[in-house]
Amino acid sequence: MSGETNRLLGMAKEIMAQPDGRELDMLASTGEQVSVALLAIALQALGKQAVSYAGWQVPIKTDSAFTKARIRSIDDAKVRKDLNAGKIVMITGFQGVDADGNITTLGRGGSDTSAVAVAAAIKAAECLIYTDVDGVYTTDPRVVSDARRLKTVTFEEMLEMASLGSKVLQIRSVEFAGNYKMPTRVLSSLTDPLTPLAEEAASGTLISFEEDKNMEQATITGIAFSRDEAKITVLGVPDRPGIAYQILGPVADANIEVDMIIQNQSVEGKTDFTFTVPRAEYAKAVEVLNSSVKAHIGAAAINGDTKVSKVSVVGVGMRSHVGIASQMFRTLSEEGVNIQMISTSEIKISVLIDEKYMELAVRALHKAFDLDSAK
Amino acid sequence: MSGETNRLLGMAKEIMAQPDGRELDMLASTGEQVSVALLAIALQALGKQAVSYAGWQVPIKTDSAFTKARIRSIDDAKVRKDLNAGKIVMITGFQGVDADGNITTLGRGGSDTSAVAVAAAIKAAECLIYTDVDGVYTTDPRVVSDARRLKTVTFEEMLEMASLGSKVLQIRSVEFAGNYKMPTRVLSSLTDPLTPLAEEAASGTLISFEEDKNMEQATITGIAFSRDEAKITVLGVPDRPGIAYQILGPVADANIEVDMIIQNQSVEGKTDFTFTVPRAEYAKAVEVLNSSVKAHIGAAAINGDTKVSKVSVVGVGMRSHVGIASQMFRTLSEEGVNIQMISTSEIKISVLIDEKYMELAVRALHKAFDLDSAK
Repeated sequence: MSGETNRLLGMAKEIMAQPDGRELDMLASTGEQVSVALLAIALQALGKQAVSYAGWQVPIKTDSAFTKARIRSIDDAKVRKDLNAGKIVMITGFQGVDADGNITTLGRGGSDTSAVAVAAAIKAAECLIYTDVDGVYTTDPRVVSDARRLKTVTFEEMLEMASLGSKVLQIRSVEFAGNYKMPTRVLSSLTDPLTPLAEEAASGTLISFEEDKNMEQATITGIAFSRDEAKITVLGVPDRPGIAYQILGPVADANIEVDMIIQNQSVEGKTDFTFTVPRAEYAKAVEVLNSSVKAHIGAAAINGDTKVSKVSVVGVGMRSHVGIASQMFRTLSEEGVNIQMISTSEIKISVLIDEKYMELAVRALHKAFDLDSAK
Repeated sequence: MSGETNRLLGMAKEIMAQPDGRELDMLASTGEQVSVALLAIALQALGKQAVSYAGWQVPIKTDSAFTKARIRSIDDAKVRKDLNAGKIVMITGFQGVDADGNITTLGRGGSDTSAVAVAAAIKAAECLIYTDVDGVYTTDPRVVSDARRLKTVTFEEMLEMASLGSKVLQIRSVEFAGNYKMPTRVLSSLTDPLTPLAEEAASGTLISFEEDKNMEQATITGIAFSRDEAKITVLGVPDRPGIAYQILGPVADANIEVDMIIQNQSVEGKTDFTFTVPRAEYAKAVEVLNSSVKAHIGAAAINGDTKVSKVSVVGVGMRSHVGIASQMFRTLSEEGVNIQMISTSEIKISVLIDEKYMELAVRALHKAFDLDSAK
C-alpha cells in the first residue's frame, strides 16, 4: 500500500493548491484504514484472530490542529479487551479524532508516534518499531563503513541522533517515548519472518529509560550530522535589547525553524547576528528578513550561505568532560576543516562546517572517538 | 472514483475467499470517504462552503449485520447546523456505525438508501437522486423506443417498477422512502451543469406520496419486466398440509428469493408445485431440492426451465378494473405468446413467458395500454 496516502493527497492538490485541512485529513486517513483492514484479513487467512481499528474507534483523541494534530488521550479499554481475548489488534497510524468527532491526522512521523502512544496507553513492556534499518548506528553506515549498531541508547541521545539527521525514528515519537518513559525498540522489518520472536525482540536498538548507566564516564554514542543546512547573517545590527526577537520573531512567525544562533561581540554599538535554518527554508527566510526586518531594525545587509552542514558528537555525560570538545576541535583542525559556528548542550557538541568537508569530518570524528571498536 | 470500492474488495478476496465482514466493511467504507473529501475540496475550490462526513460522524446508526446492515437511526444535529450555516454537506453513502462503534456497510443499494434516510432525518422537502438515467419510464426505452418518462409515480408503483427490473433505484431505498413518506426524485446526473436548479428540480420522475390521484380511474403506469428468471417444478408431490413449507423452507434457508408460486389442482392426492427464482440461483435451488427435499417429501421429479422471463403491467387501481387483466391476456394471445404462470397484486399483473417473446410482449402491451401517448 506504499504511496497510497501520497496519491490521495496528490489528487486533492490537483483540485486546489491549499485544500482545507479537515477535508485533507478525512481523505488521508483512509489509506491506513485500508491497510489495517487488509492486514486483519491476511492474519485471519492464516488462522489468527485479528481486529482492526481506526484511530477514532479506539479512540485516540487529539486536538483540532488538522494535518498536524497532537494526541491528547487514548482510551485503552477496547484494545485491552481484545488483547486479553487473544486477538491481534491493528490500529491505523497517524490519526485520531477531535472533541467534535472530526478525523485528524498527526502529520509527519505520526505513525511512529501513534505506536508509542498506544504502547504507553496499554502500559506495554516495550514498543517495537519495525523500520527499513536494523537499528541506530554510531553514525550513518553509508558515510562510515565501520559504523556500529548501538544495542541501547538513552532517550536524550536518541533525540539528538534523530533530530540531527540520523532519521531512524521521527523525533516526535522519540519525544513521546520520553514523556511516557516507554522503552522503544527500533528493528528491521526486513528480517526473515521465521526469526524466533525472542531473538528478534533482542535485536535492533533499544531506547532505554533506565538510569543504570555509569554517568561518571563520558560515553560518546555517535556522530550525527545534517547536510541540508543554511546559514544567514544579518550584518551591522544596532546592539540593543530585543534585537534577537526583532530578527527571529518574523522568521518564527513564517513557521521556519531556527537552529544554531550566534550574536557577535558588539563593536561600536553594532553587531552581526547569525543563525541557521533548514536549507529548504533559506529563500523564504531571506525574503522575510528583507521585507519585514532589515529596514525596521536598520541592518546594513543580509548575507547567506546554503553550502553548510552540521556535524555533532552525541553522548551522555560529555559536558563534564572538557576533553571531548577539545578532542573534537583538534580532530577537525588536523583535517583542515574550518568551524563556522559551535553550539553545545548537555549531551552534544555541534559544529557548522562547509558541506564539502562533511563526510570527512564524520569519518575522522567516528575514528577519533573509537566508535568503530565494539565496547 | 468509480470502481474503487470493488477494487478494494477484490484485494481482500485475493487474500481470503470469505473475509470477515467487519474487516470488509472497514475496508469498503474508505472508497466513499475518499470521494466525499475530494468533493468537498472541489466545492471549496469553487468558493463554496462545504463539509464532508463519514457515516459514523453523523452518526448514521445501524445494526451489526456487517456488509448488509440496516439503518436504525440518524442524528440530524450536525447536518442541520451545517445547513443552517449555509454549508454544502456531503455524507458517505452506504455506511454507518453500530452500537459498539464498528463501521458497517449497508450492502447493495445502500447509497440510495443513505440519501433517502438522511433526507427523511432532516425532514427535507424532497430527496433528489442523480442517476445515469433521467427518470422512470413506462418501460425500458431500449426495448420500446416510444417509452415515455413518467412525471410522477406512486410509491407502490415505483416498488413494482424497481423490483420488476426497471433498475432505476435500488428497491431498498424505495422502501425507505415509503416508510418515511419521503418524496424522492430520480433525475439525471448527466445534464448540463449550468441548468438552473429550479428547472432541474422539476425534471426527472417524482416518487410521490400524495393521495390526490383519481383512484376511480385505473391508470397503467408502465410495463416492467425481468429477463433473468428461472422456473422450477416439483412433480408428483403428495397434497397434504405443510407441503409448501417443506419445499420452500429449505430454499429460503439457502437465502434464495422465491417469487411466483403456483400449486396445481390436486389429482388423486398428488399435485405439482411450481415457483420461480432468479436465474443465477437456479442451480443452487435445484441442488437444495434434490439433496434435502425430494426424497423427504416423496416427490416424483424436479423439473426446471431457465429460459423464462416475467412481464408485468403496473398501475394503481387496476384490481378493481377487471378489464386490465383480460386486455393483457388478449394482447399476448394475439401475439401468440403462451402464458406459463400468472400472479397478481393490488397494482400489478405479472405473467411468466418464454424469454424469447419478452421484448415482443413488452412492446405489444406498451402499445395496447396507450403508454406511448402523452397524458
